[in-house]
Amino acid sequence: MRIALLLFFTLILVLPTQANDGYKLWLDYQPIENSTLKDEVGELMNGIYLFDQGPTFEIIQSELSLASEKMLGASIDFKKINREKSLLWIGTREQLLPFLSASLESEIKNLGEEGYWMGMIESDGAKHFTIVGNQPVGTLYGVFNFLQNIQKGTFDKNTLISDYPKVKIRMLNHWDNLDRTVERGYAGFSIWDWHKLPEYIDPKYKDYARANASIGINAVSLTNVNANALVLTTDFMKKVKVLADLFRPYGIKVYLTARFSAPMEIGGLETADPLDPEVQSFWQKKTDEIYSFIPDFGGYLVKANSEGQPGPHEFGRDHSQGANMLAEALAPHGGLLIWRAFVYSHEVDEDRHKQANLEFIPLDGNFRDNVILQVKNGAIDFQPREPFHPLFGAMKETQVGMEFQITQEYLGQATQLVFLAPMWEEVLKSKTFRPTANSTVSEIIQTPVSPRQVTLMAGVSNIGNERNWTGHLFAQANWFAFGKQAWNPEINSDQISEDWIKLTFGQTQELVSKINQIMLPSHEAAVNYMTPLGLHHIMGRGHHYGPGPWVTGGRADWTSLYYHRADSLGIGFDRTSSGSNALSQYAPEIANNWSNTSQIPEKYLLWFHHVPWDFKMKSGKTLWKEIALHYDQGVKSVAEMQNIWASLENDLDAERWDHVNQLLAVQRTEAEWWRNACLLYFQTFSQRPFPAEIEQPAGDLDYFKSLSFPFAPGIRPSW
Amino acid sequence: MRIALLLFFTLILVLPTQANDGYKLWLDYQPIENSTLKDEVGELMNGIYLFDQGPTFEIIQSELSLASEKMLGASIDFKKINREKSLLWIGTREQLLPFLSASLESEIKNLGEEGYWMGMIESDGAKHFTIVGNQPVGTLYGVFNFLQNIQKGTFDKNTLISDYPKVKIRMLNHWDNLDRTVERGYAGFSIWDWHKLPEYIDPKYKDYARANASIGINAVSLTNVNANALVLTTDFMKKVKVLADLFRPYGIKVYLTARFSAPMEIGGLETADPLDPEVQSFWQKKTDEIYSFIPDFGGYLVKANSEGQPGPHEFGRDHSQGANMLAEALAPHGGLLIWRAFVYSHEVDEDRHKQANLEFIPLDGNFRDNVILQVKNGAIDFQPREPFHPLFGAMKETQVGMEFQITQEYLGQATQLVFLAPMWEEVLKSKTFRPTANSTVSEIIQTPVSPRQVTLMAGVSNIGNERNWTGHLFAQANWFAFGKQAWNPEINSDQISEDWIKLTFGQTQELVSKINQIMLPSHEAAVNYMTPLGLHHIMGRGHHYGPGPWVTGGRADWTSLYYHRADSLGIGFDRTSSGSNALSQYAPEIANNWSNTSQIPEKYLLWFHHVPWDFKMKSGKTLWKEIALHYDQGVKSVAEMQNIWASLENDLDAERWDHVNQLLAVQRTEAEWWRNACLLYFQTFSQRPFPAEIEQPAGDLDYFKSLSFPFAPGIRPSW
Repeated sequence: MRIALLLFFTLILVLPTQANDGYKLWLDYQPIENSTLKDEVGELMNGIYLFDQGPTFEIIQSELSLASEKMLGASIDFKKINREKSLLWIGTREQLLPFLSASLESEIKNLGEEGYWMGMIESDGAKHFTIVGNQPVGTLYGVFNFLQNIQKGTFDKNTLISDYPKVKIRMLNHWDNLDRTVERGYAGFSIWDWHKLPEYIDPKYKDYARANASIGINAVSLTNVNANALVLTTDFMKKVKVLADLFRPYGIKVYLTARFSAPMEIGGLETADPLDPEVQSFWQKKTDEIYSFIPDFGGYLVKANSEGQPGPHEFGRDHSQGANMLAEALAPHGGLLIWRAFVYSHEVDEDRHKQANLEFIPLDGNFRDNVILQVKNGAIDFQPREPFHPLFGAMKETQVGMEFQITQEYLGQATQLVFLAPMWEEVLKSKTFRPTANSTVSEIIQTPVSPRQVTLMAGVSNIGNERNWTGHLFAQANWFAFGKQAWNPEINSDQISEDWIKLTFGQTQELVSKINQIMLPSHEAAVNYMTPLGLHHIMGRGHHYGPGPWVTGGRADWTSLYYHRADSLGIGFDRTSSGSNALSQYAPEIANNWSNTSQIPEKYLLWFHHVPWDFKMKSGKTLWKEIALHYDQGVKSVAEMQNIWASLENDLDAERWDHVNQLLAVQRTEAEWWRNACLLYFQTFSQRPFPAEIEQPAGDLDYFKSLSFPFAPGIRPSW
Repeated sequence: MRIALLLFFTLILVLPTQANDGYKLWLDYQPIENSTLKDEVGELMNGIYLFDQGPTFEIIQSELSLASEKMLGASIDFKKINREKSLLWIGTREQLLPFLSASLESEIKNLGEEGYWMGMIESDGAKHFTIVGNQPVGTLYGVFNFLQNIQKGTFDKNTLISDYPKVKIRMLNHWDNLDRTVERGYAGFSIWDWHKLPEYIDPKYKDYARANASIGINAVSLTNVNANALVLTTDFMKKVKVLADLFRPYGIKVYLTARFSAPMEIGGLETADPLDPEVQSFWQKKTDEIYSFIPDFGGYLVKANSEGQPGPHEFGRDHSQGANMLAEALAPHGGLLIWRAFVYSHEVDEDRHKQANLEFIPLDGNFRDNVILQVKNGAIDFQPREPFHPLFGAMKETQVGMEFQITQEYLGQATQLVFLAPMWEEVLKSKTFRPTANSTVSEIIQTPVSPRQVTLMAGVSNIGNERNWTGHLFAQANWFAFGKQAWNPEINSDQISEDWIKLTFGQTQELVSKINQIMLPSHEAAVNYMTPLGLHHIMGRGHHYGPGPWVTGGRADWTSLYYHRADSLGIGFDRTSSGSNALSQYAPEIANNWSNTSQIPEKYLLWFHHVPWDFKMKSGKTLWKEIALHYDQGVKSVAEMQNIWASLENDLDAERWDHVNQLLAVQRTEAEWWRNACLLYFQTFSQRPFPAEIEQPAGDLDYFKSLSFPFAPGIRPSW
């Protein structure tokens, strides 16, 4: 007996040591260690009264049950709870109406469909901590907020909280192909196992929906914007319906990418001309059919006349004619047409930077009000750092939404820890000076141009079928950050990282502080060792893995030379009036300021100017020296990230620690490779020595040029 | 305090309910419930003395630690153990020599490099349960056997066990491409993340090696037999070396697929002629280079002059000249050249069934003694049921090995529960009547033709990056079974399934019996609803998913008609002397017997005979009726599998139960589809009604024919 008891207790000690594979994301509720908080939460959790039933409240119930079991080791018996004796009330405004003061009711009502309120309510002299949403999904968001505050150790039942999303559509764009490969995917295959749908429903689908709901994501485009028309066939609709049904109670709507030439590919027509009645009829019928399967289908996301995708131009029509035709089919059902502004013509006669504005500004005012333009954060293509896209603020009568890239195509792909929130924050908080003097990108994407229009923030997903969802554990933080920034584009990145660290690793101050010191500078580090001072698009061709400033040949704007323009005189792309004049597409306040090499923020210098190697920077150093120092600083920053992580070995589970530790070593190697390859290459133009104070770039430029990566991930398989 | 204690105990009750995602395979040690066994094992585990150190003994130590923690809730302190007081001794024969009698020592020695012995040894009057191998890896196999016996509840310390593998090379063939797609893979991407190697070492690699070692697999070919020469470049060698180093202490050697045209593709030569001195030199240098990275590299696996792969025929040379040239390069290092016998010429002038024998028998005696021919179990291609390949027994001076397909290309792919051990057992136990009257396939592959030659059983892997390794949970049983049958080709499948069930689900008699009733008949069920009575190769073209008996057009032997030959008179492929005479390639005892429609086992009838629709079967029924009954019986069997599984809902964890339950429903749908499509199609020839006693095939043949599966898994991505 004694031995049995001993074994029993040993068992308890042994269990928590099991490996953490990262599958549970930021939702891995841990036992509450603070006894005061534990008592307080224990009391609340011991008597939860749910005012509603239905699918979303079932999710709320199971989330609370799981949290209670994990945080408190106690199960909740919802059936036994008496409403009046319950300390925690959860419901919708309508159900809680009898207990709300008129002013509180009105306050809650103003939070909108997805908003929630929580705080103490008195009824018959008893106090009830109450979580209330206008709709079930708002209540769900409130419950997740409540649980996250507990897990972060910041919960206080006497603090009122009310919140609502500042952007209407907070959306993941999966660039997932129907064969389960993922364009620019670095976490394995697509999680959508189309072949087994609709019959087999992977439990992962629910875990995915739960994770999204927990950070406020309410829309998902399932398929690659380089689209395959087959997803619009009836066979696939049945599959999509399964996902839509699963996601609905989590407040998530499903969208599909619509291939513009679908009428020809699956409709048997000889044209996809948007003004052709047969084409219009095809899309109407097709759209009606989708809604017959999925009554709350979100709409279409379209990439047209860009990088070889078909579009209205083939038929002599413009973007607005193409978009409006699809929007017309969606309108009767309340669907949205999302048209991507990432377009550029095949004949490169203008600076690619300018093409979106050139194509879309003339169309401003032509779009139906259920059309939204989805604009990438910058004018080129998800570079490590880009100035904000000049379309933001330039379109007066057209709704524009933001497209960020969560997957790290240009930012370290599968192997680098780069926390993207600071980059997104930089873009969101950029002043556009249009439409008003105080406008920012953030404000523009939060403000509908007409009452009937919606706002949008989209993020290109970094999710795949690897066990930890995102390949690199820290890439989970980018998924999390995207949700938080889409909910509130004004949030600071350090608040996001702190929350994510607490939910993912633990609450101790030292842990949070150290991991923050890794995450927060990681983006600047990547910019430094890849593309400092406004350099851009100098990575390997096609796969975009590693440095390739020497890439030439073929289409001009697919070469690196086109972007860096290094020569014996200097380096950088002249986009001032003496060059492509792309700067003129910004508000005059910006154009004037940035036209001047002594006024433009140095981080954008080479983006807009061709600058002599001996140009004197603000530091007093020459441009050449400053470039070299930045590259070197990038490497040093990674070394520092490694050091901090090494110091955490005993504070974290071995599996996650080792995973990140290995990848940081890879990142160090890759950062050195970037620095050495780029500096050796640019030196062939600058003809100047490396500064003495940096680690001298080593290696052989020809060797770097010779490297090839035929199996780099995220591109068309070579098999 | 009381509440805390209460919570604490609730926590214990709550923890085991967590989901089982299948990752731990058959190695998920569970607490021992039988108290007698638990005491006995507890006593042994409490004092383990390891006679050796080194990498393999570190693995042994950590396996024992894990098992003890999970089974007993007790950790083992190896450092504190005094040898004489230890009850469990583990070491190699050499170290244990002082304690072994001369006869026991000799008995153990005869078990060979990988064999092991366990039992009681007395020393100084004390008894020690001892696990001893001739080499560390043998000891590791012994320890796995010991732990599995405990987990199965069959351990008895007073039973002597000695065992050794009956086949020398027990090998997985991964058909994994370098871009992580997997040919005929149904479990996601390749687990080999080449892009991140050699820097990033996924912890999964070790778990993979451990799983293989636990079932005696000792060789792995990492790459697709449709090979890419780039795996032989120095860059890739560095990656392969990492895996080889990891696998070595688990007793696993690494092999690579060698593309015959590599000298042209990566060697800069203009020929790959095996008699060309430059080509020979290329392979010698390349092979030397591999061995400089991996001193115990296993060798090459080659698919040549088959399905478009390059080979010696392009240069006017024969298979033996091609194989010997590569074998020559490997010989100085002790490497093995495995040459696949799955070849057929592009010009179909002969029954494809005959081609391997036609090509290889004339070469018998020409191969170097470090060459082994790897022969598929049947002459066509991994069909649901095939008679054994006539090369077994036909080659007198050439070593032949077996190639089974673990991945279920033709046997349900991602969605069907088909336990393959009975199929493999049927092949292995087939009498060949050559080289002796009592020969069997099993005996042939266990017997080296010369003392210097090795024996081989290879299985095409079903492993991918899905969390449960194999996609379908029950596909794990096929991986397990392959290991067990490669270790001992004489083992019975019901012993394998019983072991697997106990290790995977639990020991209760009812559980074992019920799951056995699902697994053991599952192969016959699949044969019935797909290809009964000797039908073969009538599945969808290319992807091989679902029925396609109507497939015609293009190359003759890639059509279904070529194989089933249905017409108004009857059905089946005449391979007797009145037809292709493939039967003559078997021993006369078989050829004579099977030439007779009344003597041939009915399961092979249509494989060898074109039989009239009204032919009277042994049951007294007509062939047409018998075919229909078999198809219907296949569906009924799946329904029965579903019923049994449904009855287990409360005996299993919800996650695994639901996963299998869903997939069985899919399998039922697919079985009905096979039955309906095939019977409706064959009826267009037979022109006879369906028997009244079966469920009448429903559906529209044109509809079945119209189905297309452009994104079926396991084939070249269509992106």
